[in-house]
Order: sequence, then C-alpha cells, then structure tokens
Amino acid sequence: MDRDTASSRECSIEELCIDTIRTLSMDAVQQADSGHPGAPMALAPVIYTLWQHFLRFDPEDPAWPNRDRFVLSNGHASMLLYAILHLTGVRVVTLDEIKRFREIDSKCPGHPEYGLTPGVETTTGPLGQGCATSVGMAIAERWLAQHFNQPDFTRFDYNVYTLCGDGDMMEGITSEAASLAGHLMLGNLCWIYDSNRVTIEGHTDLALSDDIAARFRAYGWNVERVGDANDVERISQAIESFLRSHDVPTLIIIESHIGYGAPHKQDTSAAHGEPLGVEEIRLTKRAYGWPEDVQFLVPDGVYAHFRDGIGQRGGQMRRDWLSGFAAYGARHPDLALQLDQMRTGHPPDGWDHDLPSFPTDSKGLASRDASAKVLNAIASRCPWLIGGSADLSPSTKTRLTFEAAGDFEAGTYGGRNLHFGIREHAMGAILNGLALSGIRPFGSTFLIFSDYMKPSVRLSALMALPVIYIFTHDSIGVGQDGPTHQPVEQLVALRAIPDLMTLRPADANEVVEAWRVIVELTHQPVCLVLSRQSLPTLDRTRYASAAGVARGAYVLAEAGEPAVILIGTGSEVALCAQAYEMLKREGIAASLVSMPSWELFERQDQAYRDSVLPPHVVARVSVEAGSVIGWDRYVGRDGAKIGMRGFGASAPIGDLLCKFGFTAEAVLAAAKRQIAQSKENGA
Amino acid sequence: MDRDTASSRECSIEELCIDTIRTLSMDAVQQADSGHPGAPMALAPVIYTLWQHFLRFDPEDPAWPNRDRFVLSNGHASMLLYAILHLTGVRVVTLDEIKRFREIDSKCPGHPEYGLTPGVETTTGPLGQGCATSVGMAIAERWLAQHFNQPDFTRFDYNVYTLCGDGDMMEGITSEAASLAGHLMLGNLCWIYDSNRVTIEGHTDLALSDDIAARFRAYGWNVERVGDANDVERISQAIESFLRSHDVPTLIIIESHIGYGAPHKQDTSAAHGEPLGVEEIRLTKRAYGWPEDVQFLVPDGVYAHFRDGIGQRGGQMRRDWLSGFAAYGARHPDLALQLDQMRTGHPPDGWDHDLPSFPTDSKGLASRDASAKVLNAIASRCPWLIGGSADLSPSTKTRLTFEAAGDFEAGTYGGRNLHFGIREHAMGAILNGLALSGIRPFGSTFLIFSDYMKPSVRLSALMALPVIYIFTHDSIGVGQDGPTHQPVEQLVALRAIPDLMTLRPADANEVVEAWRVIVELTHQPVCLVLSRQSLPTLDRTRYASAAGVARGAYVLAEAGEPAVILIGTGSEVALCAQAYEMLKREGIAASLVSMPSWELFERQDQAYRDSVLPPHVVARVSVEAGSVIGWDRYVGRDGAKIGMRGFGASAPIGDLLCKFGFTAEAVLAAAKRQIAQSKENGA
Repeated sequence: MDRDTASSRECSIEELCIDTIRTLSMDAVQQADSGHPGAPMALAPVIYTLWQHFLRFDPEDPAWPNRDRFVLSNGHASMLLYAILHLTGVRVVTLDEIKRFREIDSKCPGHPEYGLTPGVETTTGPLGQGCATSVGMAIAERWLAQHFNQPDFTRFDYNVYTLCGDGDMMEGITSEAASLAGHLMLGNLCWIYDSNRVTIEGHTDLALSDDIAARFRAYGWNVERVGDANDVERISQAIESFLRSHDVPTLIIIESHIGYGAPHKQDTSAAHGEPLGVEEIRLTKRAYGWPEDVQFLVPDGVYAHFRDGIGQRGGQMRRDWLSGFAAYGARHPDLALQLDQMRTGHPPDGWDHDLPSFPTDSKGLASRDASAKVLNAIASRCPWLIGGSADLSPSTKTRLTFEAAGDFEAGTYGGRNLHFGIREHAMGAILNGLALSGIRPFGSTFLIFSDYMKPSVRLSALMALPVIYIFTHDSIGVGQDGPTHQPVEQLVALRAIPDLMTLRPADANEVVEAWRVIVELTHQPVCLVLSRQSLPTLDRTRYASAAGVARGAYVLAEAGEPAVILIGTGSEVALCAQAYEMLKREGIAASLVSMPSWELFERQDQAYRDSVLPPHVVARVSVEAGSVIGWDRYVGRDGAKIGMRGFGASAPIGDLLCKFGFTAEAVLAAAKRQIAQSKENGA
Repeated sequence: MDRDTASSRECSIEELCIDTIRTLSMDAVQQADSGHPGAPMALAPVIYTLWQHFLRFDPEDPAWPNRDRFVLSNGHASMLLYAILHLTGVRVVTLDEIKRFREIDSKCPGHPEYGLTPGVETTTGPLGQGCATSVGMAIAERWLAQHFNQPDFTRFDYNVYTLCGDGDMMEGITSEAASLAGHLMLGNLCWIYDSNRVTIEGHTDLALSDDIAARFRAYGWNVERVGDANDVERISQAIESFLRSHDVPTLIIIESHIGYGAPHKQDTSAAHGEPLGVEEIRLTKRAYGWPEDVQFLVPDGVYAHFRDGIGQRGGQMRRDWLSGFAAYGARHPDLALQLDQMRTGHPPDGWDHDLPSFPTDSKGLASRDASAKVLNAIASRCPWLIGGSADLSPSTKTRLTFEAAGDFEAGTYGGRNLHFGIREHAMGAILNGLALSGIRPFGSTFLIFSDYMKPSVRLSALMALPVIYIFTHDSIGVGQDGPTHQPVEQLVALRAIPDLMTLRPADANEVVEAWRVIVELTHQPVCLVLSRQSLPTLDRTRYASAAGVARGAYVLAEAGEPAVILIGTGSEVALCAQAYEMLKREGIAASLVSMPSWELFERQDQAYRDSVLPPHVVARVSVEAGSVIGWDRYVGRDGAKIGMRGFGASAPIGDLLCKFGFTAEAVLAAAKRQIAQSKENGA
C-alpha cells in the first residue's frame, strides 16, 4: 500500500483508531483502579502506525515463526499492547478481558506476561529487560536466517521492534545490550524510544542529561527523530528509514506527551502510574471529541479498519510463508526436521551418542573441564544449541571447539560461539531472547557474577524458558582471587528462585548425567554449577551409578543401618566420601549421599526421599562450601551444617579449605558429634 | 614544582621507578603463581605520574580526610596499587607483604580489600563497581565541601581518580554511573581508562565497538586522549586538563600495551590473568635493562625519589590542613563536632528526640509510611544522613521533606535528597562511595529491584559499610503490578549475604525500633524491608513492647504453656495475631512471635533464643509472604511453613492473599495440624 495515499484517505479513521487505543487504556486503568494510563495515551499513534502499516503480524496466529517481534520494554504501558491486540483481532484478548485488566486470572495482567497472552513476545516490567531481550531476538533471527535460508527459500527475515522509555534508557542492562547490538550490526533491530521527559520523581532533568542520540551513535546505531508522537507521517518515515538500513540497528527517538490530552495531568508524573480519575477522564475524552460517559467504546469501523489493514496484510504474509513450507520441507528435509524439533523443544535423535564416560581417577578433573567435553559432544549433534560467555570462555570452558561451530560476529551470523563481552546482565536477557526464538541457548560466567544478571535469570524462570546457565568457579575453591570472586550466597539465592533448577555435580560422571537432565528440559531454566578445581572421578564400582543425579539426590554408599548421613554437593562430595571411609575404618556405619539438585529431589515421591534420607536417622551432616541457609530442611534443626558463615579470603585453595573447615577430619568430627547427640536425645 | 623541568631532570629515575613498579608486579604474580601482571606492566607510567606528581596523598597517613581518592576499578591489577603503596612508603605494605601477595592473611590479597590495606579506598574486583563507587566519593566531596567549607576555611576540595579498563567500560553499572556523574557535573571526578584492546577471550574487537570518547561526551564529560601509556608528559597534560575543568567530569583514554615489554605476551590475553613464566620474565627484564635474576628489586634512589616527591608534597598538604583544623574548630565548633561524629560513625546526641510513637490502630498504615515519618525525624537531627531513590521516592516514601533538606543537583550540592534516576545498580555503589566518605547514606527502591543492585549490596557487606537500604513493596502485597514486581526470593537472598542485616518490621512501632537499631550500626549495612499496604498498628498494651525488635525476635503474646508457636515477619505478623486470637478463643494456648531479623536473633544468647522458641515446643508455624527457604531452621523439619512456592500474580491484594494461602484461617489450620502431629509423634 502506498503510505501517503493511505494516510490522507484514512485520516479520520486513523484518529478514531488511535483514540480508541487511548480511551480503552484510560478506561481499563480506571476500572482496575490501578495501572499506567499516561504512556498508552502518548504512544497510541506510534503503536497504531507500526502495527497497522508495518508490523508483520497475523492476529489469527500471533506465534507464526517469521512474524516480526514486538517488545514492550516499558511493560507498565501494558494497556497499549492489550488494546492493539484486541483491536487487531487476537481472539483471546476480548473486551471482557480488557475490562478485567489487572483482575485475578485475567489475560490482561498488570505487566505483559509471556505464555499468558497471545501476542505478548516476552514478559516485561523490570526496566531494560525488554530492550536487552529484543537484542537476543534479533541475534536469533540473524542465526536462523543464516542457518535455514536457502537460495530458493527465505524462511526467516523478520524484524524486531522494541518500544522503550526513559527508564529503559537509564538502566545499565540497556547500555550493555545497545553496545552489543551496535557491535553485531543488527540491522533487523529497531528500538523506539518514548522521550516524554517525565519520570516518577518528576521531570527527567532531575537525573538524566544524556544526549541519547549521540550515545547511540557512539554504539554504532542509526538514529532517527520524531518531534511529535502524533505525527504519524513522520513516524512512518522513521520506520521506513529503519527498513532501509540493513547493517546497523536503528533508534527512533519520539518526543511525546505523557497522558496526552488530559487537561490537568498531561506532561506530569501524575499521569504515569495511577488512574486519571473519573472527572479527568471525562475532560480528556471531551478533548478527543469522544463520548464522555461511555466506557470501553470501540466505534464503528475500527475493527474493520484493522482487519483490512494489519489483518489482511499479516494474514497474507503468513499464508505465503506457510505455503512455501511444504516445498521447503521436500527440498530440505533435514532442515525442516530441525525446525520441527526446535518447535517442540526436544533434542535431535542420537544427541547423546558421543557422550563421554569418565574412568575412575583420584586426581580427576575440574567439573568445568568435564562439562566442556560433554557440551561439545552434545552441541556437535544439536545445531541449535548455541551460546557463549561474558568474556570468560577460556575459564568457564564453554567454547564450542569443533570446526563447524565458528564465532557469531557481524557478517558471520551462522557462528555458534557468542561473545557477550563483559556484560553479564545483557547476556542473561539475550539468552531469554534466544530461547523465545526457539534456539537452545547457554551462557556462562563465574558463579559470583550470577549476581550481575539475576533479574534476567528470574525472568527465564518466570517465562519457563529452557535457558542453560553455566556458572563455574563455584566456591572458595576459586582460591587466590579472594572474597570478591568467591561465591558464598549465590547458590542459595539461585535455589530460591521459583521454577529454576540448580545442579551442582560432584564429579565428571555426574556432569554427564546433569547434562542428560538439562537436555531434556523443555520449559525450565537451569543453572549448572561447576568447579574451578579438579575433583576426583569417583569409582563407580565402589559407589552407586551417577545416574542417580536425575533424582536430585542419591545414596552413593551405605554401610548397613547408618548411624549418620553425610550429605554433600559438588566438590564437597569427595570430602564426605573421605569421611565416610574413615568412619567405615572405625567401624561406624554411615550413609553417603550426593545431592546435586534440591529441586529434582523435591520432585521425587516420599518413598524415594525417605529411602535417601531415612526419617529415623537424625544424625546428619551437610557439607557445602556456600551459605548454610536452607540445609536445615535436610539435616534438621539439630543437624550439623558445614558451610560458609562469612566471606571467603584470598589464599591458595588448600589454605582456604583448612581455614574454613572443609576437611575430611572436620566432617568426621561433626559426624561423630551428631551420632553422640542423637544417642543422647534418643536416651 | 614545574613539571617540565622536573621531568627532564628526573628522566632516568622516573624510568627506574616505573620499571620497579612493573618488575615488582611481575615478580609478585610469579611468586604467587597466580594473578594479573599485564595491566600493572602497562599502567606503571600512569600510576607513577598520577601519584608522584598530582595525587594528594600522604603515605604517613593514607586516611587523611582531605586526601584525593584513588580507586583501582580494574581491581585485578592490584599489584599496581600495592607496588605504589609500598614504594611511596605506606608502612603496612612492606616488601615482605608483597612477597606474600595472594598468600593467606597477606596485606596484599588478590584484589584490593578495603579495611585490610591502608591506601585501598574501596574493595574492587567485580567490574564496574569501582567506577560507580568513585561517583559516590565525588558526590560526597561536593556535599562535604558545601556543608563544611567556610569563607575562611576550605575543609574539603579533594579530587577522585579512578583507573579502569575495558571490562569496566562494558558493564552496565559503569554506564549508569557515568551518566549520573555527567548529569551532576562532577568536576572533581577523573576516570582514567586503560584502553589496551585485549580482553580474556581475545581482542576487544570480539565484542566492543563503542566510540568510547563519543559515548562519554554524550554523558556530558570532558574527554582527553593519551596515545601512549608510556608518554608521561602527555599523561600529565591530560591530568592538568582535568584539573582545569571544574564543572564536568573528565575521562582520560590511554592507549596501552598489556604486558608491556614482554616479548611474547605483550598485547595478548595471555598477559592478563596468569604469571608470565620465569623465562618470559627474564626476557622482559632484559628488555627493561633490568637485572635478570634478581626478584623484588627496588634500586637505590627509588624510595628516596618517591619520598622527595609525593611524600613531601602530600605530607606538607596534610600538615597544612591539620594545622588549620584547630582554628576551624574554634570558629565553627558545631561543624567540627559534626566532623568528629561522622568519623566515629555515631549519631549526634538527641538524634531520637523527635521519634514518633504510633497509637493502636486496627487500620494502621503502611510500614513505608511509618518509615517516612521516622526517617525524617532522624534526618532532621542528623545532617549527614543523606540519600534518595532510584526514581521511586514517591512510592518508597524516602524523601526528606523538611525545608532544609533540599535536592542534591548540579549547583546545589548541599541538598540531601539524591535523585539516582532509574539506575539501581549505580545507586548501590554510589551509596558505598558515600559511606566510604563518612556520610551516612540511604537508598531506596522496590524490594524486587534489589536484584538489580545485588553486587553492590554485597560489597557494602564485604566492606562493613553502614549503608541503609530501604526496600519497599515487599511481597505479593504489591498486588496488581503482578509477578514481575512481586518479590518472592529476594528476602532470603539478602539474608544469605554474610554480614548484612535485614529487618522486616511488623507495624509502625516496630519501624521505630528498627530505625533505632539502624542508627546505631557503625560497621554493617542493613536492609529495611517495608510494605506497600497498610498494616494494623498493634495494641502494645495487649502485646509486648516493640522494643523486642532489637533482639531480632520476641514473644508478642503467650497464653500459658504454648501448644504451638506462630512465627511471623512484617505484614504476616498481623495474620499470626489473628490466628493466635482464634486459637485462644478455642482454648488453645499458643505463642505469638514477631521475628523482624534473623541476624539479630542469631546474635542473642542461647537462653534468650530458647525463651522465644522453647526447644520442647515442636509444633511451629512460620508465616512469611516469601520463599520458605531457611525457615526450617526455626520450625524444624516437620514444622509448617506458610510462604511462597512459586511466583505471584497480578490481582488485587485481597485476591492474592487468598490465592496464595495468607489467611488467618490457613494459619489456624496449620497450627492445629502441627499440634495434632506433635501429639502423634510424642505418643
């Protein structure tokens, strides 16, 4: 369609559609008595123009693979998205759901939630996350295009649009992501920045003086400006400029008026996060030339206008794409199969054919090194397993080293080794963006720096995305780098995130089994927690098979009716095993338990859990070189917890293990005290 | 001293000093068999020039109040700092300590640790933290100068210098901090960026293409360039340009060669994080014209040169400053007293005279609102209590509203309300910088966004700084904003940080008592966790005094020998109280415990702890609208934990409390089950 002709012809219906978005947003927030009306009122012309005239989106199938992605990074403006989803015809988003905005079990919750509402591409609300996630989506498109497109078929060529605000611009994660997007020359990425000069505390002058355009040019972006958010012509021109600019991302800066049209609240922070109030809504509607006393009004012609615009255009594009799929499948069956497997989340057949098995070795190897072998064995058979590190891959050992893997860089978008730079937080969100695009992503850094990316890890869990986090250097075992680099509380902090799985394998063969668990996960993120230092590879003829990892905890060895249970995770299992053997030599029966995953263990039935931790055995010792918080659950109020009660220190590992009490002798002594105490209490 | 004359005269001794810094660093890393030689070798001329000719530092008293601050944000280059501290004559940093670099209990640990080594201004290592902390130091100087300087006496006019690297430049926290520093026009702040184009994964081309100079100009900074890190003349010129530039911060970009002089490792990532190796060190020393087989050599004349330079200059400045202090104290005794109190960390006398007391009120008020009153009452009597919010003060209620408080902005540096913008992470580090400068800082955001600033909160704890974090909107009680805004796992994550105190008061009077605890802390950070929703103000004639807060947990009410203990924190205490009354009506004796702080409770002696939680009463119920992890410690393996086991949801608070089981009925039922179960087990 010719835009110029279209817009002049459609002027009044356009305004009607735009004001419908505005009034639906105002009414919904007022009805909920909670929410953010100001941004939707300001940005209605922007979302209208983008969706109606540009966005490749089919309301009939909002998840069509080659759709453009739209991310609302300023998630508090959720009504903007719900309104456009409703008006364009996404079935689930009914007017009734909009009337139930922010009510329990509504499809229109306070902030957009992925998986709940069709058309919501990612959960947003924590500022900056949407921006950074959209970089992951743009990376994904470049990789998918490189991997799947053929001379005769273009499978992927979508764009990623992100709407964001002042808050996004100030958050560090956004800077990280923008810098990487510029570096990678992601020409398929367009951020639209709502510059309304108002934040919660007042005018942005209070805290922001950046020359945003210059800042983004310094990142390597193309920058467009729209002086007035109501100027749909200029918005269209800016988007067209983006579409012409193929080798750098684009930032469109739009000057807008928060709460546009509200006579007393426009351009004030009062329009941001609370209902306008009945009277102000009335006056605003009057300013729009809108019926003042009707709520949730969708005037005649509005639905039809969207149906004839985005509906027809998007539907046609989807049908064209689908119709090509059969031919593509016939010509490239292997690639079509891959696409299908990616869709279901399951790994390709034979993914585990090359998995190594590690022989008994008292010296052993670091679990990060064992994981390197396993990861490469899996990745070589699963083409869509891609990832990288926040500039630590030589240390985290997560590089895909086989020849076909290559590096993902500007111009070599088929590479599978990503270089996130020293940008952990953006890495987390980018992994989310990759997972949302069907790729199985992994990202690595030191466990201590999981702190830098926590908000993104939380979103992986909230969205149930199968992101693989590989966190190495997992304890004071780090040694001489000292307390700033030694995790203490990170493991329990990760365990506390709902719906996230943590795995801390004890030796190389547990690493293999941990990866078996990981590969099969389709709707859950996981943290694989690995050591810097060597861990002995346990003799599995003497101890139980590492297959027990799949149940979260398992008995490695048991000598008769145990007087005491020793529970370890990761590097501390070998320590427990030493203490177990010492007890055995003294004729004391113990049970040796490896517990790589609390979450997996809690999923087992009571009978299994009782078989690993028999309730009547109250003498128990847990050993983990991290915070002791949470271990009472497994050792009881009177159990012994050997762990960290303060920060670490800078010294060689041997000195630290002594200093902080991680010795077989200390475990032995604690076990004996536990046995004595349980006898006393039993007497 | 005239720089030009000085440098030509001292050319050879300068080179000798610089190479001493280099070789000490190489030797120490080699001896430790661990560490980072490359950056110290590259930056030796930079630190030499800055310290010898510019830095206001007296090795005799490295903590002199009006000293310039030097922050090594690239903390892995710690040997650079230890070498200069040693050579300039800081007594504790002996050559023996340098020989024990990275050994246990050395004063020269892997990364610089505040409080351990004189001259180390802040703990660094986690990248970006030093940069952001230095912004806090620069803010502090502006405030101190405004508050304490008088027409007749300048008490504070120091500068803040920060050395940083590519990692710092990529971290989001640095962007946040730089943006705010530009906004605040901190002309006393100078960052020196070591651009060596090498990161751990290889060349910076892998992940960084920013035009750093343009980026910083966009933040409002002055930018200087030094093309060669060995060009001490140009380094001096750049620093002089900073000193001339009074109203914007300065970035000096220095092109350097990591591992300068090492024939095989210069300009490679191999020079970054591991010893050079004996042979490479030999060759490097040969390149420097240095004796090849001598370690830890400090040639004749080096100590004397530093003594005659920085030693004399710094000593004289300190003595001049001190000599003015008596006169200042005589003329401005009130201000001198304040300075003394700030030094000790204790609040002024009478700080608690205006503390409110809240009457019984079944409707009550939100603990954030109660805290607002208390904070203002304290702040009006304690001038150096300053702080702000990451753009949420209208919601967190942390604004200082009394007239004298004002806003801290460029040009009004005496204001006490800081506007951090939507930059939680930088806020955390800036608070650390303020605390390191003697100010008592507070910062606020929603509890959920504590995730965004976790690495800085951890550093507050590691450095034992009395930073006050105020985290509001502390549970699903947030309501309609939904799961992205509802903390679940944040409280336990904070509790898991060693040496950090958390306080979650149950009503307005507990808020008062919590602040009493906070104000008296001198070496510990604290998180004050507050509700969005109203909490009833308990009837303290019926329940025990809120003074029990100081002991972490206390019995609010007890009916005879209790059959069950109900333990709540924050908003859930009222729920427990309801259940307590229901039990009482049914003739069941219970104990009602409020437990605002695990950490304070753990500090009490066993007798007190047993009086609150009598060991023989095994029927126990904990109620907290957060993760249940850790509560087993207080309720036992078989106790009942009412808490969150997944994410929240978007709905009005009442619906959520029902949905997630936070009702008096649920607590009552759990209590009865506990009683029945304990009887069974006792039988």
